[in-house]
Amino acid sequence: MSVKSDIEIAREAEKRPIQEIGAKLGIPEADLVPYGHDKAKVSQAFISGLKDRPNGKLILVTAINPTPAGEGKTTTTVGLGDGLNAIGKKAAICIREASLGPCFGMKGGAAGGGYAQVIPMEEMNLHFTGDFHAITSAHNLLSAMIDNHIYWGNALGIDERRITWRRVMDMNDRALRDTVVGLGGVANGFSRQTGFDITVASEVMAILCLATDLADLEARLGRIIVAYTREREPITCADIGASGAMTVLLKDAMQPNLVQTLEHNPAFVHGGPFANIAHGCNSVIATTTALKLADYVVTEAGFGADLGAEKFMNIKCRKAGLAPDCVVLVATVRAMKMNGGVAKADLGPENVAAVKKGCANLGRHIENLKSFGVPVVVAINHFTSDTEAEIAAVQAYVAQHGSEAIVCRHWADGSRGIEALARRVAEVADGKSAQFAPLYEDDMPLFQKIETIATRIYRADEVLADKKVRDQLHAWEAAGFGNLPVCMAKTQYSFSTDPALRGAPSGHSVPIREVRLSAGAGFVVAICGEIMTMPGLPRHPAAETIGINDAGEIEGLF
Amino acid sequence: MSVKSDIEIAREAEKRPIQEIGAKLGIPEADLVPYGHDKAKVSQAFISGLKDRPNGKLILVTAINPTPAGEGKTTTTVGLGDGLNAIGKKAAICIREASLGPCFGMKGGAAGGGYAQVIPMEEMNLHFTGDFHAITSAHNLLSAMIDNHIYWGNALGIDERRITWRRVMDMNDRALRDTVVGLGGVANGFSRQTGFDITVASEVMAILCLATDLADLEARLGRIIVAYTREREPITCADIGASGAMTVLLKDAMQPNLVQTLEHNPAFVHGGPFANIAHGCNSVIATTTALKLADYVVTEAGFGADLGAEKFMNIKCRKAGLAPDCVVLVATVRAMKMNGGVAKADLGPENVAAVKKGCANLGRHIENLKSFGVPVVVAINHFTSDTEAEIAAVQAYVAQHGSEAIVCRHWADGSRGIEALARRVAEVADGKSAQFAPLYEDDMPLFQKIETIATRIYRADEVLADKKVRDQLHAWEAAGFGNLPVCMAKTQYSFSTDPALRGAPSGHSVPIREVRLSAGAGFVVAICGEIMTMPGLPRHPAAETIGINDAGEIEGLF
Repeated sequence: MSVKSDIEIAREAEKRPIQEIGAKLGIPEADLVPYGHDKAKVSQAFISGLKDRPNGKLILVTAINPTPAGEGKTTTTVGLGDGLNAIGKKAAICIREASLGPCFGMKGGAAGGGYAQVIPMEEMNLHFTGDFHAITSAHNLLSAMIDNHIYWGNALGIDERRITWRRVMDMNDRALRDTVVGLGGVANGFSRQTGFDITVASEVMAILCLATDLADLEARLGRIIVAYTREREPITCADIGASGAMTVLLKDAMQPNLVQTLEHNPAFVHGGPFANIAHGCNSVIATTTALKLADYVVTEAGFGADLGAEKFMNIKCRKAGLAPDCVVLVATVRAMKMNGGVAKADLGPENVAAVKKGCANLGRHIENLKSFGVPVVVAINHFTSDTEAEIAAVQAYVAQHGSEAIVCRHWADGSRGIEALARRVAEVADGKSAQFAPLYEDDMPLFQKIETIATRIYRADEVLADKKVRDQLHAWEAAGFGNLPVCMAKTQYSFSTDPALRGAPSGHSVPIREVRLSAGAGFVVAICGEIMTMPGLPRHPAAETIGINDAGEIEGLF
Repeated sequence: MSVKSDIEIAREAEKRPIQEIGAKLGIPEADLVPYGHDKAKVSQAFISGLKDRPNGKLILVTAINPTPAGEGKTTTTVGLGDGLNAIGKKAAICIREASLGPCFGMKGGAAGGGYAQVIPMEEMNLHFTGDFHAITSAHNLLSAMIDNHIYWGNALGIDERRITWRRVMDMNDRALRDTVVGLGGVANGFSRQTGFDITVASEVMAILCLATDLADLEARLGRIIVAYTREREPITCADIGASGAMTVLLKDAMQPNLVQTLEHNPAFVHGGPFANIAHGCNSVIATTTALKLADYVVTEAGFGADLGAEKFMNIKCRKAGLAPDCVVLVATVRAMKMNGGVAKADLGPENVAAVKKGCANLGRHIENLKSFGVPVVVAINHFTSDTEAEIAAVQAYVAQHGSEAIVCRHWADGSRGIEALARRVAEVADGKSAQFAPLYEDDMPLFQKIETIATRIYRADEVLADKKVRDQLHAWEAAGFGNLPVCMAKTQYSFSTDPALRGAPSGHSVPIREVRLSAGAGFVVAICGEIMTMPGLPRHPAAETIGINDAGEIEGLF
């Protein structure tokens, strides 16, 4: 039996008009701003009218630490949404948008996989509804206005050596990481060293994803710190006078995008901030809108639960006043084996001992998630190579840890394969057992927030930071930023800062190399290692083989 | 009586659903790819099916040399389209898209003015349907792939000092004109000096506007020369392997955009190449599509007739196999006065003598246009300050020059004010008197093509060019580019290269400072002065006052 690729399945899917998908959520045609026949934005006016409606149940899908075996978090998010609809519930999913640039390096990706996908796949990997282009424009308008301000006399007294705002491009272009601009003489301004990040790393992206409406968006943009004076006084985007124009550029991008799953269920695909220097969740406005329109909203967070779910709880939920009713923790037998010490090439044969050993990673995540006061259900994303004994080992382990693990076959079978999980998740969410609370209070000192995450989530013994980092955190506290949550930038492959350390390590140290203030997004970033904010292209980028074939189809993108 | 601003008129307009506008041209709903409710792209599949239909009549709107008094070329294009529809003809207009970046420097502009406008005005000044963002992405993908090629070993032997392909951004950002990229060490590649142009100056823009279909687009992209080896051998975009992926990025952007005039008539707004280093016309695909769908297509070209109409005839029509059936030359009494030596501040009082003197500019353009074998009708775009004697002076002058001048009041009255012109233009176009021929043959040597334009259109005595320029032209001829047309980059304010020289100068010299090869677009650019390809922002950019007001409207953009 030949297995169809994601793109083959996606192309064969019969798409319903997007108006029909909107109608399932009660969105009138006039309030769906179409982008083609299969994509639409939900109008701001319609969203504003939803305020007084009750919220549906919020379900977070997160995962164990990612391994090269693949855990299928988005696939399970999509599958669970379809599964809930299949058992008669009114459900919607909320996921992130893909970045265009990286698709021309490595191949682009599906949103989901197999028979649990969101479509149209090609558009979602290319320009989609233009949101990221709008973010690029807004970001770079601010950049241009900063240099222009200096050019025309620098009335604000910006220290050209202390401009922190760079430029962005949605492209993997390593040559732009470190640049000098303003060369060529008097007419071109003052020369200075700066660089470009990829668009998804822009603070504007994080802001768009955390803003509750256009007014909040403009206020947050205004608070971005772009530079400092010689006296170390911050200069903000509002000082430069750019926040109004940036809001105009982002007006359409703030409206959430509606598309459909392969089973024609509503999917909001909106926003896509980095999961290291930012919080890695889809937009607040998409999630809150979906909660007003559906009885169950399934969403996900970037990376594993130590990073993604922690930020979802401590940043997104805290800031947006959200509270998850149930968490689904995705695991695979293969990933358990890898956490148990098996190499990817050796995943084939049954190895119950390795599975049992690797379950420590899963158990740690279950404990951590429960510490937020939310019930946890484990989804075992099924692979054909999984044996019954291996699955039973995971289920027994999870049962011992006070949860349950349900096998899901949505990749192969769509909603049919995930109805058991859907039923259990609905039951749990309806049971109202969640007593959500973030891990720390707003008024905890910044360094203590870092320590709390490191010791309680990562199970480290200590946080290492030199005086410069601690002084910086104190300075921000003195400047009124002490109440912000912390956004950890750490490897996603381990609870520790060592990507090779699988399983459930403890007793390690978490070194904080650098801290950054995202005053507009509203968090302090703690960086525990090297963070790459502008990727490069490989020796043979996918772009070399991407093209349109004689049938008018895109080739090489997937 | 208070006069309404363009934006007030545009906002008050009752927009019809874009499907209704498409239906006027027989475009089925399924073949209109909507972008919101008031914009759509015409599907490539539908366009491909039109091949065997007969063409409608093609009407070019051009103008005298622009003066600070404003001539109203786009306004007349829109008005004439509405006028033709008002007298019962099936007519469409084709104009260019606006660039986003400059709107944040000076205020953005309407497409047309008064009661002869295309809407939606705000979207057309912002992201519109994303075409320019797609061009930016495609251009910069090629840039990234060039540096990436060098990074991974430079198998093609690119001379890093001879990379001619820069990067682009749709933003007025003078700091990006001259940059160094690739700083920061081994991982970031090789440092080299380069810079950014504004997106509309990209050769990709010119290519998109001249390509007849996706296959032609890809072939043209492949021919772009991006660099030279140490042996001065050209390296093309196809050598880099980028043309397929760029075509994928431009797939949607190649489909022409349909919007509506204030009178709900169809308007194609597509493409927007620079009118100096490029040819300054809307896309070939929009024009050819409109010609299949409407009986009369009104289009325009950038700047005055010496630049815009010349390039329309010698580049766009030659390349696309088009032939105009009638040319409308727009003039105003005020501009005639300025050409007659009156300063802008003194335009108020009647001055028939100045009008008569200034008509020399108009007469020269009429002669030039007739030399292409096309009939010319003059449109006097009426201003309330025009006196009857002044108008009569223009009309008498035009009559002496074998044409006729018709007063048009479309700005104040919409189609009602331009019916006389519409009737005359339809009559002329239907009369089939045009015997169009470009000014020179393909096989004329490149320098002689420049001389032909300079002496026959600009009425210069001579073309000045040093040996380096002549040698370069010969080298391109030897390399097989001798059959390309020439694209002149000259000031738009005068027939000469001196912007202050109004009227109808003759006997001057045309110095060629530099020549450039746009091998993908398919022309040789001859540069007669300083050409700015990346604008800067003014001391107080419009962006400082742009924002969204409490009513949710955009303020400060217009």
